[in-house]
Amino acid sequence: MADAAALEGMSIGVIGTGLIGTSVALAAAAARARMFVTDADPDRQRIAISMGAGSVLSEDQEPLDLVVVAVPPASVGHVASRMLVAHPQAVVTHVGSVQAQPLVDVETSGADSTRFVGGHPVAGREVSGPTAAASDLFVDRPWIICPGPRSSQESVERVRRLAQACGAVPMQMSAIEHDAVMARVSHLPQLVASALAASLQDLDAGAVAVAGTGLRDTTRLADSDPAMWGQIAAANAPALAAALRAVAEPLAELAERLDVASPQVVDELVRDLLHRGRAGRARLPGKHGRAPVALAVVECVVPDEPGALARLLGDIAGAEINVEDLRVEHAPGQAVGVAGLAVLPQDRERLLEMLVSRGWVAGSGPDEAL
Amino acid sequence: MADAAALEGMSIGVIGTGLIGTSVALAAAAARARMFVTDADPDRQRIAISMGAGSVLSEDQEPLDLVVVAVPPASVGHVASRMLVAHPQAVVTHVGSVQAQPLVDVETSGADSTRFVGGHPVAGREVSGPTAAASDLFVDRPWIICPGPRSSQESVERVRRLAQACGAVPMQMSAIEHDAVMARVSHLPQLVASALAASLQDLDAGAVAVAGTGLRDTTRLADSDPAMWGQIAAANAPALAAALRAVAEPLAELAERLDVASPQVVDELVRDLLHRGRAGRARLPGKHGRAPVALAVVECVVPDEPGALARLLGDIAGAEINVEDLRVEHAPGQAVGVAGLAVLPQDRERLLEMLVSRGWVAGSGPDEAL
Repeated sequence: MADAAALEGMSIGVIGTGLIGTSVALAAAAARARMFVTDADPDRQRIAISMGAGSVLSEDQEPLDLVVVAVPPASVGHVASRMLVAHPQAVVTHVGSVQAQPLVDVETSGADSTRFVGGHPVAGREVSGPTAAASDLFVDRPWIICPGPRSSQESVERVRRLAQACGAVPMQMSAIEHDAVMARVSHLPQLVASALAASLQDLDAGAVAVAGTGLRDTTRLADSDPAMWGQIAAANAPALAAALRAVAEPLAELAERLDVASPQVVDELVRDLLHRGRAGRARLPGKHGRAPVALAVVECVVPDEPGALARLLGDIAGAEINVEDLRVEHAPGQAVGVAGLAVLPQDRERLLEMLVSRGWVAGSGPDEAL
Repeated sequence: MADAAALEGMSIGVIGTGLIGTSVALAAAAARARMFVTDADPDRQRIAISMGAGSVLSEDQEPLDLVVVAVPPASVGHVASRMLVAHPQAVVTHVGSVQAQPLVDVETSGADSTRFVGGHPVAGREVSGPTAAASDLFVDRPWIICPGPRSSQESVERVRRLAQACGAVPMQMSAIEHDAVMARVSHLPQLVASALAASLQDLDAGAVAVAGTGLRDTTRLADSDPAMWGQIAAANAPALAAALRAVAEPLAELAERLDVASPQVVDELVRDLLHRGRAGRARLPGKHGRAPVALAVVECVVPDEPGALARLLGDIAGAEINVEDLRVEHAPGQAVGVAGLAVLPQDRERLLEMLVSRGWVAGSGPDEAL
């Protein structure tokens, strides 16, 4: 966790008091920065200030050390350029999901780009607005810092200090590299999830009723904000087009083959796709950033009433078994849930025996890599 | 839950003692059926019997009332036809993910298809084998019953009785309808998740390290069994090809447009896709089969040590707040987790106040529809 006085003596302005801007302001205020905020929407500005985000950023402002631009993706470059001019002693950073376009905007604006450093705290949310903000939004999340070709080392350090004060894990990439990576690991999954969810529109109610947790998980991202993603896609179109093809082309080719190939060939093609998918997924970071660890899952029926889950976890804690991950899933039409308890493989049998001995309905679930 | 003696007096054979076959046998044995099992693999058969799945199915067998074919998808129709001949008093059903191909196989085999009824307990797993079996695998899950054109009503009723005895929720569809629905809500998400995960293979380690839970969720299904999915795809190729196009074509078209369109047009196209995705996802069943309910999520930092989660849930239970859904997520490189506690919106403030007053680090998380 961050040093509680990490930003003591710094004056920071935040432009835009949406979810991310307000959360940065709350976290920086907690680290003792003097905070000033502004928003084109007076309601949002008032809410953010009432939450403790700081004072109103005014015309006859004391000089700022750092300006954080937290406006919608399409406006980042323009606003950052203006801030470089308006606050001649300040380092200007932003918190957008796209880096190259704002960098180009700033470099071509004529402003002093030695004081500009892009930044992207990777804290995915499906909501927006200051009321959802929290000072711990960035704790333990990556905060990608993207210096431009002319950013000074001192400017980069100031942004790194902000990231650390917010409890995030700073990383560094070029803007181009950032955008290519995000196209693959963030923007692509978003559009794939949305396209899959959109394909459910023409199904009838009986069909969607038999959908399981697999479809729910695969489409969870589809609840995201359309306006924000429209702007992100517009600012990262070339990298995103390449990423989309990496998924759309194999699926379209497979559809072609399914129309004409023998069952044996279809079997081989799909088996091969599944093998490649397992290999790709095995590369995702595991718990605590380690390589993925295979965990055993024990499933346990939990009555849908206050305290049942606590009683279950109390029984487990009493047996001194550490639950590595936990998930509660409800069956359609039933007032009970099933808790999936992920534990180290060597703990599975002991956990099962303990649960059954205490009257829980429990069994082995699917193994998973976490 | 099922009547504990629901199958008293019935003799049931299970062909194939993998995950599903063994789970059916354990559930039916618990409902007092006389169970007989067999598997081409003597090890799997021995494990299933040692777990209480029943006795060995033998040549000079007492007459069976019901035979459950639980073999790999490609063999279902052939084995079911043989069973109709070998057990002339038995109703023969199966538990496969594909229905039309086995029905065609049986109808063209010359066997008595009035005694054949397809079935599909929808209990998705990413694992296989008898050791993962559990008598409660089907509790509260849909069990889709697919009568053929010549299935007798009595045969259908016998399969429905088995499904209910296993604790499942029986539903009825035609084989064709089943396969079209499964192509859309099960087979398509599987192949999309696999294709998305496969696209991660050529990223470098730094890139996958910044992947968030969004990508993890969207690709969770990619850990599934390649051999099983190869056979499912081969048996449901035409419906699956159509389903694949419903996702691949919009994504490919979008990629084309991203290459040439103005930022404004890209913005509009992606916003439209997101809106359609939200509309599609809103159709998925909510908790307890009701329409989706908007829940408020409170996030709380949980130290990674035995008992911490139990203590948290104990505090919540003490405040008599019902947690509707719960999820624990770990940040890369850090030994703490964040618990997402989904509660009814009216409980959010009370939960937050209680947590903070008891020393937990907690804040509002993203709202979700469950």
